[in-house]
Amino acid sequence: MIERIAILGTGLLGTSMGLALRAAGFRGAISGWNRSAEGAQTALSMGAIDSIAADPLQAARECRVVLLAVPIYATLDLMEQLSGVLDCEQLVTDVGSTKAQITSAANRLFNTPDRAAFLPGHPMAGKERGGATLGDATLFRGAVWLFTDDPAWQRSPQASDLVKEWRQWVVAMGSKAIDIDSVRHDELVAWVSHLPQFVATALSALLEDQVGDAPELKDVGGRALREMTRLGASPFSMWRDIAYTNTEIVQAALLALEQRLAHIRESLRTPALREEFEKANRFRQE
Amino acid sequence: MIERIAILGTGLLGTSMGLALRAAGFRGAISGWNRSAEGAQTALSMGAIDSIAADPLQAARECRVVLLAVPIYATLDLMEQLSGVLDCEQLVTDVGSTKAQITSAANRLFNTPDRAAFLPGHPMAGKERGGATLGDATLFRGAVWLFTDDPAWQRSPQASDLVKEWRQWVVAMGSKAIDIDSVRHDELVAWVSHLPQFVATALSALLEDQVGDAPELKDVGGRALREMTRLGASPFSMWRDIAYTNTEIVQAALLALEQRLAHIRESLRTPALREEFEKANRFRQE
Repeated sequence: MIERIAILGTGLLGTSMGLALRAAGFRGAISGWNRSAEGAQTALSMGAIDSIAADPLQAARECRVVLLAVPIYATLDLMEQLSGVLDCEQLVTDVGSTKAQITSAANRLFNTPDRAAFLPGHPMAGKERGGATLGDATLFRGAVWLFTDDPAWQRSPQASDLVKEWRQWVVAMGSKAIDIDSVRHDELVAWVSHLPQFVATALSALLEDQVGDAPELKDVGGRALREMTRLGASPFSMWRDIAYTNTEIVQAALLALEQRLAHIRESLRTPALREEFEKANRFRQE
Repeated sequence: MIERIAILGTGLLGTSMGLALRAAGFRGAISGWNRSAEGAQTALSMGAIDSIAADPLQAARECRVVLLAVPIYATLDLMEQLSGVLDCEQLVTDVGSTKAQITSAANRLFNTPDRAAFLPGHPMAGKERGGATLGDATLFRGAVWLFTDDPAWQRSPQASDLVKEWRQWVVAMGSKAIDIDSVRHDELVAWVSHLPQFVATALSALLEDQVGDAPELKDVGGRALREMTRLGASPFSMWRDIAYTNTEIVQAALLALEQRLAHIRESLRTPALREEFEKANRFRQE
């Protein structure tokens, strides 16, 4: 059924989806739009899209499936604009990193029998740097792709079929599709995704203050330090909307980690340190 | 000059040194001793050593170079025992992760014209799990190998030549040798090595409490979470002596990170968050 796809936003994720769809055997048309023309040109030259659209709404109107691959607030903006111009034979899906607000907007703007379907999605894949040039057909292999669909929605039969077909493409791109409630999603990713990011940012910023004037000393930390600070390269532009839309839960997670670090700091010469290591070991048990 | 080497402690580092020496072309004899017979047998079967010594002091006496690859307090114990039984034509070196106490002991027990030389060393290489079975001939490739030698020592000419020759083997194993004051060493590694470890332990232990009962949710974090918690698998036995011998500096580093996390927590919706990301970005600039 899906013979035309529009990718709105050809950054790292949008470009990677185009490449991954091609690698998985998708033979239909893929048009792409990007806020900056340069990103769209790169995606085109890499073969992630086969035409550049001048206007996102026009591109969406002409396609069966619309992939939103822009930051969270830009996604919410596009959802407002798209809901009036699409019909019940179209599907919109996104890749936003927080899902409560987007799922709520989807409930309000889409997913009635006479409107387009909206399937809120979140592939747990990425790189510490963005941009079309880093697009990668294998980015989603082995990744979890979360969906925060609301079972109460009453979609048209065509829209329901489109949702099914898109989920098959997600699996074809190598991902494992998992359904989860949108509020539970935001709580979960606060712990397993957002907290690790803000920790890496804090550690990197602290070390920049401590040893940033002696770059040769970074080598001393070796692989362990490189891994623990790799996410320090993540751009603020990718994380601003996440910090804004998941503030309370991220704050709770950060506070809990501060308390854990204080506990370790006070336990460096006591048996409590062993307990912390053993608990950490359990988390990493295969 | 170096025709016989004794490796005391055939865990991950000891076994890897034996394998790396062989890979770098060392053709002399390598005898190995380990507290548990099993580790020595594994090192022997892997070709890291070519004989098993029953007694560490006897093995040391028979070899030109003695590599201590045991935890820090065990290193200090062996140094006490070895200083009386070795002579000025022998070299002892170690791989301990903190260096102030070991360098001070080396100053006291070795490195006079009539005694064996002691070169305090610290290869910045390892794995999150220990043991001979993980021994790896390439472990030291591209790593920094720190030496906290004291230029004031008056070694015998033979001992000085041995130190030079051993440093050449370190380079032959693929490492970059860097000299650093022992107190400065302990301060530096507190920031770039110990702090990342304790952060990974804290994060892993916290997540074990939060999502440990739902192992399928660990997959959601993807590569980023795996990297940020890989060191959570590190055994307490490897870190107990480090926590004990570098307590004050590690405490200062942990406290600084707690404050940094609190700052981020309070800045999630303010421009200060951008500053933290930009500072972290600078640390990761190539």
